[in-house]
Amino acid sequence: MKAKVHVTLKAGVLDPQGKAIGHALESLGFEGVGDVRQGKFIELDLDETDPDKARARIGEMCEKLLANTVIENYSIDLEG
Amino acid sequence: MKAKVHVTLKAGVLDPQGKAIGHALESLGFEGVGDVRQGKFIELDLDETDPDKARARIGEMCEKLLANTVIENYSIDLEG
Repeated sequence: MKAKVHVTLKAGVLDPQGKAIGHALESLGFEGVGDVRQGKFIELDLDETDPDKARARIGEMCEKLLANTVIENYSIDLEG
Repeated sequence: MKAKVHVTLKAGVLDPQGKAIGHALESLGFEGVGDVRQGKFIELDLDETDPDKARARIGEMCEKLLANTVIENYSIDLEG
């Protein structure tokens, strides 16, 4: 089973990387770009076939390693 | 209009960051984790309201700044 995990900064947490992208876009001449936020996108292959169990395991992975839950949110999408 | 951009390494391009995540998960006791790939996830606010124009502009941003198209693919999702 394949899983896609998005890890994003919580609202209100300063995102210097996103700000840098915003400024770079502006200096390249792209106008009308508002807020830019950068997050992480992780694709995992799991040998688990039960969606509920897979989701639970990936949740645990996020809590322990993939996300810093003090400042980041995560979301899990399963496929096939 | 909000846009979500995924930037991922092309198939066949070595992903040391993904490999490191895979090894870290294994050493934390998570078994049955296969390939892990890490990409970037960028959320943008645009003042463009026409979806086709927005998509074209973001495509240009990806080509010029957000993605290294030699080794990376990008995909664009628009919302509202």
